[in-house]
Amino acid sequence: MEKITGIIVEYNPLHKGHGHHIEQAKGLTRCDAVVAAMSGDFVQRGEPAIVDKRARAEMALGAGVNLVIEIPAVYAIQDAKGFALGSVGVLERMGVITDLVFGSESGNLDELDRLADILHHPDDALLEKQRSYMKSGLSFPNARKMALAALSRGEETTPEATLALSNNILAVEYLKALRHYNSGIKPATIRREGAQYTDLTQNERFSSASAIRKWIREGRNDLVEGAMPPQAHRILAREIGHQRGPAFLDAFSSVLIPFLHARNRDHLKRYSGVVEGLDLRFVESAKGANTIPELLDAVKTKRFTYAKLRRILLYMLFEIEDEIIQESNAYGPQYIRVLGFDSVGQEVLKRLRSRSRLPVLSIGSAYLKMARHLEKPRVTERLDTTFRYALFRKQIELNFRMTDFYRTAFFTQNERPVMDIQTPPVRLLEI
Amino acid sequence: MEKITGIIVEYNPLHKGHGHHIEQAKGLTRCDAVVAAMSGDFVQRGEPAIVDKRARAEMALGAGVNLVIEIPAVYAIQDAKGFALGSVGVLERMGVITDLVFGSESGNLDELDRLADILHHPDDALLEKQRSYMKSGLSFPNARKMALAALSRGEETTPEATLALSNNILAVEYLKALRHYNSGIKPATIRREGAQYTDLTQNERFSSASAIRKWIREGRNDLVEGAMPPQAHRILAREIGHQRGPAFLDAFSSVLIPFLHARNRDHLKRYSGVVEGLDLRFVESAKGANTIPELLDAVKTKRFTYAKLRRILLYMLFEIEDEIIQESNAYGPQYIRVLGFDSVGQEVLKRLRSRSRLPVLSIGSAYLKMARHLEKPRVTERLDTTFRYALFRKQIELNFRMTDFYRTAFFTQNERPVMDIQTPPVRLLEI
Repeated sequence: MEKITGIIVEYNPLHKGHGHHIEQAKGLTRCDAVVAAMSGDFVQRGEPAIVDKRARAEMALGAGVNLVIEIPAVYAIQDAKGFALGSVGVLERMGVITDLVFGSESGNLDELDRLADILHHPDDALLEKQRSYMKSGLSFPNARKMALAALSRGEETTPEATLALSNNILAVEYLKALRHYNSGIKPATIRREGAQYTDLTQNERFSSASAIRKWIREGRNDLVEGAMPPQAHRILAREIGHQRGPAFLDAFSSVLIPFLHARNRDHLKRYSGVVEGLDLRFVESAKGANTIPELLDAVKTKRFTYAKLRRILLYMLFEIEDEIIQESNAYGPQYIRVLGFDSVGQEVLKRLRSRSRLPVLSIGSAYLKMARHLEKPRVTERLDTTFRYALFRKQIELNFRMTDFYRTAFFTQNERPVMDIQTPPVRLLEI
Repeated sequence: MEKITGIIVEYNPLHKGHGHHIEQAKGLTRCDAVVAAMSGDFVQRGEPAIVDKRARAEMALGAGVNLVIEIPAVYAIQDAKGFALGSVGVLERMGVITDLVFGSESGNLDELDRLADILHHPDDALLEKQRSYMKSGLSFPNARKMALAALSRGEETTPEATLALSNNILAVEYLKALRHYNSGIKPATIRREGAQYTDLTQNERFSSASAIRKWIREGRNDLVEGAMPPQAHRILAREIGHQRGPAFLDAFSSVLIPFLHARNRDHLKRYSGVVEGLDLRFVESAKGANTIPELLDAVKTKRFTYAKLRRILLYMLFEIEDEIIQESNAYGPQYIRVLGFDSVGQEVLKRLRSRSRLPVLSIGSAYLKMARHLEKPRVTERLDTTFRYALFRKQIELNFRMTDFYRTAFFTQNERPVMDIQTPPVRLLEI
């Protein structure tokens, strides 16, 4: 167990390309194990995952991942920066990861690293340019791209072209997060070809996962089956057969639209990300909307992406205020939640016992024992302050709550779903 | 226009007994006009009214009321004390009401007045007894009744018997509210016979309005028609025919149950009335509940009445915190909203111009003109402080929001419902 490689994934759902990525990561780093930091039941697009985190962890194990760790929910539903702080944070704080492999359209680590440097410590010239573009109505990511472009005119690299692509943006944020945590993990990037995108209609391009979700919604099972590894597809079919999904954000229309009707703009201001008149836009747009897509079309401006608006809807649903987001981004994740492992992953877990800088939760209820232990005056070496312990509680409480909500909303079988705190990890062990 | 009599009503819906009450009030006071302070779209039981306030105002005019004023929503969905402060408050501050007639099981004004005196200025002995009963687990109203009983042993009157009856409780609160406002209005009470209650099942007793709502729910139109004056029934049938009702609290199950699933107990603590562990009871009970009745059965303890729990659900739905309730009860209503009038009522409205101590709103949007006027530094004689003006805005904003929510939820016809701020009063004028 010299080399353990981390990857950062959503598997929403796992498709054939993902299996290939795992093999590439193994080949590139010649590692002894692959650990995936994976989004839980809600993903970075601001939506529920198509099936729940246990099923997706099972797909991951079947495709060659050895250990699946949950990205705490407070990070999984943030923009690229927060998502990276959470996912890189859990991998770094496990204390055993030696390599991090991520995809990018660029495929050029030096180029991405230079961008990460500039953006990790942006100089005044960049910030100044960026502010002026935002004043002219551009969204934060677009203003940043334009500012970089303006400052690098005449240079060979073209940052705005690089940062126009979503995997590059994430890659740069992962590299910034490694700096943030003063991490010794060695980064590597694999070029993602345009081929992983499929043109489905004349005007829209879907990533494979998006396409599969669309096909699931439309009931086009042949296409779904063709796009997924057989084992992952069996899990998906089993989950849907057992009425545990598929989950779509639209299911929250009947909660969120009346929620907005019942509130005024001042009530919305307390949610993270509700800035610059979005409070009023949400309240007014809800008056003529019957569904979340109608609502979002009405709220949308070029200043805000759809993903951002969807994430704000989740903040409203779960009462996520700026405080927990800011604290979480400043101090990083406070626990390692194990979603699944195989026999190799089990060896990694053993190493975690002595190496992890965070409490490791295999079953959620272990949290309660830790709570009892940690509430005694003696503070363990793992958590250095009462503040961090309070943050641990906030992060895991939100995670339990979001997962329980997901199960209550989308597990429509008759028996009452098991609560997250009582759920053990998925084990894929050789007999 | 020497004598103008006020009555306090909900008309949920108006039944044959109500017509009789209006005649009694007229006969008893020999008045020139009857003004009803009426609940708007949400009533004191903590539920939406069966049909909306305009339809119920129309029923009131048809039954002999000359002018209908809305009890501001922040009072209409409070316990007896808050309900009385709001309803007596609007009548008192109109400046033209000379008499107030209300029903009671007692029928004895002297008895009720003595109780109002004790309770308006409770002595230490009473408060002490009451606290000890509450500690033993009794609800506030029951503890008060028991304390009164304990202190009046051997006396001829039996306060606990008097205050065991809902109309007596309200009557005493109206008399207390007259004291609170130092009102010159002359109170009178009419005895409500037990006959106004109908035994519908072996175990439960329904007031006529409750029975009618039950029959509406069950589609027993013959019974509904038999219990209502023909004119009121025509209005009810017209509203239901136009898909503007009937409204039941259960319709909010799909909003409020997921709302509770998505929140933790700390989130619920900010709502008015969420005390003594009710936060946890709501969160935990919601986990096994699919509908509001199931939820309430699980939350219920002898400490809290169902009506109180339903009101708390409305506080959660509309983000009603303690502040607006406490401020409203301390300072009273800040506007007179006219829901409907006939030609006699129109004369009363003319008198209001010079006599009302509050702004009179015939159409909601008049509020905006007032807002412009009142935001100038010169404060009119009607509103003596900036504080009161801020309270005026809070009260009317909540009222607009609740009415708009009601219409969006229950007006299921195709055209988008008119918003409350744009709605003029109902006029029943002779041609």
